[in-house]
Amino acid sequence: MTTAPTDTRYDQAVIEADPAVPAIHIWRDFAATPEQLFRAHTDPELYARWVGPAGSTVAIDRWDATDGGAFRFGDDEHSFRGCFHTVRPDRIVQTFTWEGMPDDVALETITFEELGDGRTRLHAFSLCDSFEGRDAWLRSGMEVGVNDGYAAIDRMLSDGTL
Amino acid sequence: MTTAPTDTRYDQAVIEADPAVPAIHIWRDFAATPEQLFRAHTDPELYARWVGPAGSTVAIDRWDATDGGAFRFGDDEHSFRGCFHTVRPDRIVQTFTWEGMPDDVALETITFEELGDGRTRLHAFSLCDSFEGRDAWLRSGMEVGVNDGYAAIDRMLSDGTL
Repeated sequence: MTTAPTDTRYDQAVIEADPAVPAIHIWRDFAATPEQLFRAHTDPELYARWVGPAGSTVAIDRWDATDGGAFRFGDDEHSFRGCFHTVRPDRIVQTFTWEGMPDDVALETITFEELGDGRTRLHAFSLCDSFEGRDAWLRSGMEVGVNDGYAAIDRMLSDGTL
Repeated sequence: MTTAPTDTRYDQAVIEADPAVPAIHIWRDFAATPEQLFRAHTDPELYARWVGPAGSTVAIDRWDATDGGAFRFGDDEHSFRGCFHTVRPDRIVQTFTWEGMPDDVALETITFEELGDGRTRLHAFSLCDSFEGRDAWLRSGMEVGVNDGYAAIDRMLSDGTL
């Protein structure tokens, strides 16, 4: 997996296609510790508060953020599910499917890297099984949910929720 | 995912690198129904009888072959674990890790295609996160366990175990 240059700042999410494999990279810096970002991704009540586009209300149907656990959540229109392969403070590996296309399964690796200045860099690496599937996902408008969700994390960090 | 030409016979496993993505294909035909191969991959007692190189004795530590379930198994030397993302009669999607390299996670899709002559074609598609990791796996001697395991399935089909 590519490591982003450390002199770059990602105050907004950068979403990029990997040049070699059918994967999407997302980089985003937060004024947070790795532990705060880990909780935002593993505590179901916190996760439901930030994930997805602004204005969506997400219900968690299943949640066991442990090695071999699983999750399912959704709003009125869309549901998503997957399993947690690895849940460690510095690394989450999980599968991810939009139930509208149940045979499209991504393998996501999310890491939290402390930058040493009170900020932590999130890197999400989402591996698809084809370049066509990856490119369709990039064209789907996914950046709206990504940007809105991460902005919600910023607010939860500011107001002490996280 | 590539579909193998239907006029080809795979009485022995064919193991191939995908030309485009960092994945390994395995094709193997069995004198079996899809349902028999599905049971061989989802019933823990049956799975322990065939998986791995000849002579290995595998113990199942964890097994829940349902959507969002998980597994762990191993012999005296090696343990493997993962989670089941999808478990359907025609399709199993699971993560897979050798615990000796816990951050190397493959996403495996196993399908069972009835050939119409009493035989069924197994196709396993194992997606890795890099070409280097995929190629290292191909060079690891994996074909021994694959061939021995599938020969054990042949015997279980012949003697009525499956």
